[in-house]
Amino acid sequence: MNTLNTTAAAVLQRIRDQKPLILNLTNNVVQSITANMLLAVGGVPVMLTHTQEIRDLLHSCANGMLVNVGTLSAEQAETMLTAVTDAAEAGIPWVLDPVAVGLLTFRTQVCKQLLQTPPAMIRGNASEIIALAGAQGALCRGVESAAESSAALPAAKALASHTGAAVLVTGETDYMTDGQRTITCTNGHELMTRVTGVGCAMGALCAACLACADNALEAAVATAAILGLAGERAAAQYPHPGSFAAALLDELDRMTPQDLEFSARLTEI
Amino acid sequence: MNTLNTTAAAVLQRIRDQKPLILNLTNNVVQSITANMLLAVGGVPVMLTHTQEIRDLLHSCANGMLVNVGTLSAEQAETMLTAVTDAAEAGIPWVLDPVAVGLLTFRTQVCKQLLQTPPAMIRGNASEIIALAGAQGALCRGVESAAESSAALPAAKALASHTGAAVLVTGETDYMTDGQRTITCTNGHELMTRVTGVGCAMGALCAACLACADNALEAAVATAAILGLAGERAAAQYPHPGSFAAALLDELDRMTPQDLEFSARLTEI
Amino acid sequence: MNTLNTTAAAVLQRIRDQKPLILNLTNNVVQSITANMLLAVGGVPVMLTHTQEIRDLLHSCANGMLVNVGTLSAEQAETMLTAVTDAAEAGIPWVLDPVAVGLLTFRTQVCKQLLQTPPAMIRGNASEIIALAGAQGALCRGVESAAESSAALPAAKALASHTGAAVLVTGETDYMTDGQRTITCTNGHELMTRVTGVGCAMGALCAACLACADNALEAAVATAAILGLAGERAAAQYPHPGSFAAALLDELDRMTPQDLEFSARLTEI
Repeated sequence: MNTLNTTAAAVLQRIRDQKPLILNLTNNVVQSITANMLLAVGGVPVMLTHTQEIRDLLHSCANGMLVNVGTLSAEQAETMLTAVTDAAEAGIPWVLDPVAVGLLTFRTQVCKQLLQTPPAMIRGNASEIIALAGAQGALCRGVESAAESSAALPAAKALASHTGAAVLVTGETDYMTDGQRTITCTNGHELMTRVTGVGCAMGALCAACLACADNALEAAVATAAILGLAGERAAAQYPHPGSFAAALLDELDRMTPQDLEFSARLTEI
Repeated sequence: MNTLNTTAAAVLQRIRDQKPLILNLTNNVVQSITANMLLAVGGVPVMLTHTQEIRDLLHSCANGMLVNVGTLSAEQAETMLTAVTDAAEAGIPWVLDPVAVGLLTFRTQVCKQLLQTPPAMIRGNASEIIALAGAQGALCRGVESAAESSAALPAAKALASHTGAAVLVTGETDYMTDGQRTITCTNGHELMTRVTGVGCAMGALCAACLACADNALEAAVATAAILGLAGERAAAQYPHPGSFAAALLDELDRMTPQDLEFSARLTEI
Repeated sequence: MNTLNTTAAAVLQRIRDQKPLILNLTNNVVQSITANMLLAVGGVPVMLTHTQEIRDLLHSCANGMLVNVGTLSAEQAETMLTAVTDAAEAGIPWVLDPVAVGLLTFRTQVCKQLLQTPPAMIRGNASEIIALAGAQGALCRGVESAAESSAALPAAKALASHTGAAVLVTGETDYMTDGQRTITCTNGHELMTRVTGVGCAMGALCAACLACADNALEAAVATAAILGLAGERAAAQYPHPGSFAAALLDELDRMTPQDLEFSARLTEI
C-alpha cells in the first residue's frame, strides 16, 4: 500500500468530516468555480472584501485562507497585506497563488511583500515559481509542460527552504516539495488548463487540505492527487471543456478516500 | 385545488408574460448564476455599480431590485444606501438578502441602516433572520436544518411586523410570513446548498416575483415553490453538484404554471 | 465554394495555430464565460484591473483587447480610457462593446470619449449601435429582433465610416459592415440570449479573430459565423439554457474550419 496514497485518502476523509471554512481573497474571474470546487470537495467557501470583516472572520471561524493575485488592484493589495498579518496573528495557515508573477511588475513586488509573512503553501506553475524564487519568467501562456515544471524544481526547493512553505508546482506532472522531500503526482488531464479557474481554485483546495493535514507537504500531496484524479476521471467521460467543467465538480463530490488509495499516482523522488 | 399553488402558478405565468427587469446589487461570487436564474425563470437581469446609472435605471425601466451584502465593501455600502432611497422614490420594491449578518459587524450595521428604508421582502437563513431581528446568530455554516429554520419563525414574524416586509426563511423547510399569515414550503433539495449562489440568486427571484405578485407574501410563496420544485426535479436526475447546477437552470426554464399547481407543497400554518 | 465561409474557416485555423492572448476589460457578470469561450475557441484570456499591469501586458504579449462597459464604474472608466491609448501606442487592436449605451448617460459619455481613440471593431445590438451613432435608443430588453438589427444598418455604416472600425450588429440576423461592404450571418439561436454573457463574450471572440484576420471586417464575419454555428449546434441538442451553456463551449472546442466551410450562412448584401 502506497503510504502517500494513504495520506491523501486520510486528508480527504478529514475534509469531509471537518468541513473546513476557507476564506478566499482571489481574482474576479474565478470566484464562482473556487467556491464550487471547495463545496464539491467538502469545504465551506467564504469570500470577503472588507478589511475589518476579513479580520473578524480570521479571528472567529476561518480554518484557512487563499491569497490569489490574478486581478490585483492597488486597493486589493493593501487588503491582502493586512489579511496575511491578521492570519498570522490568528494562527490561520494561508496559501499564496502568485498568478503571472514574473510577467507583471506590480504583482511581483506585492508578492515579495506578502512573503514577509510566511505562507504555509505556495502554488504556481513553473514560470511563476521560478520568478518568485528570484529569476524572471516568460509567462505569456498558462499551460506549462512537464519539462517546464521539472525545470522549476530547484527554484521550488529554494523557495520552500527560504519561506518555510511547501511549494506545489503544477504542470503535466505536479511537483510538491518542502525543500527536503520531493513528491510527484502524475494524475490530471490537459483539459484542466482549458477551463478558467481550475488552477486558481486548486489554491483553495490547498487551503482546505492544509486545514486537515498533519503538515503542509502532505496537504500539497493530497491536493494534487484529489484534483488530478477528479480531472482525469471527468476528462475520460467528457472530452470537451463545457461538459468537462461540470463533470469535474461531480467527480470531486463523488470521490472517496478509497479512490485515492487505489488510483492516486504519487511518487517520492 | 390548493389556492397557494394556484397563486404560485399565477405569479410564474405573469413573470413569463411581463419579463420583469431586475436590478441586482449583489456579491462578487454569484453575479453569473443570479443573472442565469433570472433569465431561466423569464426575467431580465441587470447589474450596475455606478450610483447615477442605478438611479437612472430605477427611474426608467427597473421593475425590482435585489440588495445582497455577501461581499460588502465600504464603497458598495454607500452605493446600496443611496440605491434603496432611489428605489423608494421611484416606487420600485426591493429585496434585502442579509448574507452573514450576525457574524460580521460591518454588514450587520449596514443592514440595519438599509432597513431604515423599508424593503418589500427579506430573504435569509435562520441565523441571518434571527440576527437581523436583533439577536446574535452563530453563522459559520451556510446550511440550516429544518429545526433551525422553524426556530427563526418568531424572529421572522417580529421582523415582518417591524419592517412591513414579507420574510422568507430558507432551510430544509422554507417559512414565509408577513407577520400575520405564515406559510411553509417543503419543496427543495440539499444539493441547492452545495452550488454557490443558489440561495443568493433566490433573492433575485424574490424580486422578480414581487414585480408580478399581488403582495409580498404571495411573492415569497411563489419564489420558494418555483425554486424548490426546480431544485428537487434537477436533483432527482443529477445527484452531483456540477451537473445539478446546469439542470437547475434547465428545470427553471422548463417549469410551467401547471407544474406548480400539481407539485408545489405549500401549507398555511 | 463561398469565399466568406473560406475566410471564416481560415481565421479559425489561425486562432488554433497562433493562440492569440486577449486582454479583457469587461463587466463583473461575464468574466468567467468570457475566459471560457476564449479558451474553447483556442485563445488565451487575461483579465487585469491595474493600469500599469494593463500597460505592461499591452507592451509585452497581448494580441488584442476587449473593452466592455457593462458594469462601468468611475474608476474603471479611467482605467479603460488609459488602456485604449496604451493599446494604440502598442499597436494592439481593440474592440468596444457599448453595453446599454443610449439607456444610461454615464457610459454613453464614456463610450464617446473612448471612441476618440479608434477601435478596430464595435460590437453591439441594434439599440446600442443606433445610440452610439448619435440617436437615443430605448434599451430595456437585451433581445433584439432581426427587424431591429436591420434597422440599425444605416447607423452601423455611419459609425463604421466615422470611426474606421468594423461594426457588428448582433440580432436574429447579424450584420457586419466596414461602411463599404455589408455581410449578414444567419447562424445562431435564440438561446444564446438566455445565457448571461454570451453576447459580451462575443466581443472577446471579436478580439481573437482581429488578431488573426487580414482585416476587421473579416474578423467580424468570422466571429459571427463561429459563435452562431456553435450556438445553433448546441441548441439543437440542448434546448434549455443550463445544459446549453456547457454545450456551447463544447461546440466551440469541437468546431473545425471545415464545419465553417460547409455550415456558415454568410451573405454579402
